[in-house]
Amino acid sequence: MAAAYTLYGSFLSAPTYKVGLMLALSGLTFDYRHIDLAKGQHKSPDFLRINRYGQVPAVIHDGFTLCQANTILEYIAEQTGKFAAADTAERQRIREWLVWETDRLEPGINRSRFFERFAKPDQAVVDYHRKWAEMGLEVLNTLLDGKRFLVGERPTIADISVFGVVAHMAEAKFDIAAWPQIKVWWDRVAALPGFRLPYDLLPKGDQDAV
Amino acid sequence: MAAAYTLYGSFLSAPTYKVGLMLALSGLTFDYRHIDLAKGQHKSPDFLRINRYGQVPAVIHDGFTLCQANTILEYIAEQTGKFAAADTAERQRIREWLVWETDRLEPGINRSRFFERFAKPDQAVVDYHRKWAEMGLEVLNTLLDGKRFLVGERPTIADISVFGVVAHMAEAKFDIAAWPQIKVWWDRVAALPGFRLPYDLLPKGDQDAV
Repeated sequence: MAAAYTLYGSFLSAPTYKVGLMLALSGLTFDYRHIDLAKGQHKSPDFLRINRYGQVPAVIHDGFTLCQANTILEYIAEQTGKFAAADTAERQRIREWLVWETDRLEPGINRSRFFERFAKPDQAVVDYHRKWAEMGLEVLNTLLDGKRFLVGERPTIADISVFGVVAHMAEAKFDIAAWPQIKVWWDRVAALPGFRLPYDLLPKGDQDAV
Repeated sequence: MAAAYTLYGSFLSAPTYKVGLMLALSGLTFDYRHIDLAKGQHKSPDFLRINRYGQVPAVIHDGFTLCQANTILEYIAEQTGKFAAADTAERQRIREWLVWETDRLEPGINRSRFFERFAKPDQAVVDYHRKWAEMGLEVLNTLLDGKRFLVGERPTIADISVFGVVAHMAEAKFDIAAWPQIKVWWDRVAALPGFRLPYDLLPKGDQDAV
């Protein structure tokens, strides 16, 4: 039997990992379809019908197509009630973290990682992004001080979204030891039932019922 | 009598404009508090109590504090029903545009504008951001083809959010004439009742009931 969720993505993609982690921590199985970014499959007419922006990940749930990882997290939380907000105030704080992460954390870390792993641009471009990444990590480290999770006393999609980026900071050559509050929080997220690191979670090809 | 909404921001800030435009198009008056970015007021202890990230804009509505412009748009739409989604499918598409804009449009355009107006970094950094901006504008131009607005047949917060960035493209030295579908859509948004361009909308100092 096909799983209710089908995840389209790449094991190299941090946003794909976010969605995979959300499904895994929520105890949901999913079918997986590998999109080969090096071959440009994300820009193919077939994939553009699933995600008009030509980016991974995408999800199909009961015939409904979704894209943009943070909105997929919010959708799954609303469907299942897991890692969801308890009230309007929490929902607002969670959404603020999701936007902050896209705006201030992900570009610095994910592009720094891209430059380390795949293609190095001019050193000034590398330095510019490393500075943004460090500013983002500094804000995160400060705001985690004295808190168990980002919003309230239990994990929410804000933690899963931000973790999806932080999980790749070592590949971007940032040492978590420099941000001790992030390290403590990382260990708390990594202890959640169902947790898996990126390369342990996402298959390298199509797979049913991950 | 104080207005229900108080907007904290700067007339120089594209995200502040987004929120001001949402309030204006929704027919809502608001009190305005100018945050002087050059003086670092956004990093002051007083302002950090309103917005923990130390960024503009922020909004206080009936004592409830909000930050991150796109979440403020979603909140106001939910409060008023204006520029809101009609159903779950529309809500998903709107959220996808909000994330795409933060991820793929705003960094290229807003930083290119910052480099033109305030501080020029190494030319390689300028070129890198201009390329991202052009890729974003190209995607937007393509996806607007044959559509009146971004989601459905009427304007939503997706249009207001994306317009808040596009409104600053001329200052970033991008000529809208190169993206004809964006120009047609711009004229449609600019014809909405209550519409005002950035420098006609945001005061240069504190002001009650804008």
